[in-house]
Amino acid sequence: MMGNMVKQDHPADLLESWITRRGAPVCVGMDPVFERLPSAFQRLDPASAFETWGRVFLDAIEPHVPAVKFQSACFERHGVAGMNALAKLLAHARGKFLVILDGKRGDIGISTQHYAAAVVDHFHADWVTANAYLGADGFLPFLQAGLGVFALVRTSNAAGDAVQSARLDDGRTVSESVADVIAASGAHYVGACGFSALGAVVGATKSADARQLRQRMPSAPFLVPGFGAQGGGLADALQCFIHGRGALITASRSVMQAFENRDGEWSQHVAAAAQAFATEISAGLYAQGARATNPL
Amino acid sequence: MMGNMVKQDHPADLLESWITRRGAPVCVGMDPVFERLPSAFQRLDPASAFETWGRVFLDAIEPHVPAVKFQSACFERHGVAGMNALAKLLAHARGKFLVILDGKRGDIGISTQHYAAAVVDHFHADWVTANAYLGADGFLPFLQAGLGVFALVRTSNAAGDAVQSARLDDGRTVSESVADVIAASGAHYVGACGFSALGAVVGATKSADARQLRQRMPSAPFLVPGFGAQGGGLADALQCFIHGRGALITASRSVMQAFENRDGEWSQHVAAAAQAFATEISAGLYAQGARATNPL
Repeated sequence: MMGNMVKQDHPADLLESWITRRGAPVCVGMDPVFERLPSAFQRLDPASAFETWGRVFLDAIEPHVPAVKFQSACFERHGVAGMNALAKLLAHARGKFLVILDGKRGDIGISTQHYAAAVVDHFHADWVTANAYLGADGFLPFLQAGLGVFALVRTSNAAGDAVQSARLDDGRTVSESVADVIAASGAHYVGACGFSALGAVVGATKSADARQLRQRMPSAPFLVPGFGAQGGGLADALQCFIHGRGALITASRSVMQAFENRDGEWSQHVAAAAQAFATEISAGLYAQGARATNPL
Repeated sequence: MMGNMVKQDHPADLLESWITRRGAPVCVGMDPVFERLPSAFQRLDPASAFETWGRVFLDAIEPHVPAVKFQSACFERHGVAGMNALAKLLAHARGKFLVILDGKRGDIGISTQHYAAAVVDHFHADWVTANAYLGADGFLPFLQAGLGVFALVRTSNAAGDAVQSARLDDGRTVSESVADVIAASGAHYVGACGFSALGAVVGATKSADARQLRQRMPSAPFLVPGFGAQGGGLADALQCFIHGRGALITASRSVMQAFENRDGEWSQHVAAAAQAFATEISAGLYAQGARATNPL
């Protein structure tokens, strides 16, 4: 069912090695919107524009960031041609970055097995995002296929509070109860680096919860969206680390749109923004003393 | 952002009219697995096999059932070619059935807008399934694009209990609290038939909860998976109706694989299974007296 391509490297070890290689625990989101691409690309059809733009974009940020996250919705929005552009850009990113496919899939076990096979055989990524509302069925098949999983625990949007902040009769919030499911399942998938292949999405906009969730899931790598454009700040993001490790801070629009209202080559502005983002996070960690014995 | 194709018919009215036209509130799932297709199709590549098989399958069940539900995972599993087969089969089903795209997408608002545009512009369906762990952001953009949404409330799988059955400090379960979010939001999207464009997925295997959830969401159409192969029975499924209306019972494998271990034309066995399934549900409703004044 899964095909023959079970990955050999443990996903958490791979994540750690990429962060060490590039020197900052950051991830740039690939969330392309046709109307917001540099104007030269808007003369192409959307799928061709994404592919052409994306190759230059990825090459521009490669020296500065260890990880990229592809937002599946932005590509699905352009139909089969968009999915084809996604597959080609995932292939282009392979070996240059740790690659995350942000599809937030989640289904019963047999269907999640199909989603896992889609990633292993076609839409190649090292890690995926997944929704755990269906429990372990929503993430275990990805782990069993050798992929890393960032399960949604505490999302960066305000509307998520309606479900995630509700308090259980034992005092935990719903997101804390999901965190406990992730911690328990993830304990069976810990790599040599001490972190698990089962991680958690914890929004940078929810720093009051992040510290608590960090304690509940000490072995889970955190994927931290919401930094920058969505309003999360440096101090918020730093809550997600444990001794300077175990989190990957994501920025999308602040890097992707860095060329807007600026003269000169768009890709140079993007590269500079990626570098500045990486520097801001690594300097923040260094200042915090979190990596005092192992500075970035 | 949404394109120009906002649908004119209210999704709940469309659902009701299809059920009335075909005479039974049932839905057949399109969850194709290459290795389980009739053997003649296994000589083709998977995407071509799905497309060729799917056209015959849809035509075979068309006289008997009002709705079909496409499991996106089964198509994504075969990459871009699989997504192309999905788009073509969705187009083939259009006008022949009420069409549901079962992708269980759910993201922050801007990304859900992209998913909605994908359905309006490319992967055409009347209704979608969506995950509400991110709150209203996960379903409102679909409604705003004119689509119906079945939000995951109580899923049919055992593993879902770990999240959905947890009890809040006010006595509700997590799935009941999600139901209340759905009922409140859905009240703004009620059609002429009295049902909302915002419905709920409630598994036939969770009948103890179904009655309670039916009361909490009186205007929400229920999509009820888990009947048949997953273990839900007729009495369980009937809990999901309100005066004989407002639910759509789904079967997948029991129809799709009806040809196995049987002689003769595969599509005739599939058609007979679809007809038997529709008759079982409509007869059950009739016996229950639920549609006493408006028999199916």
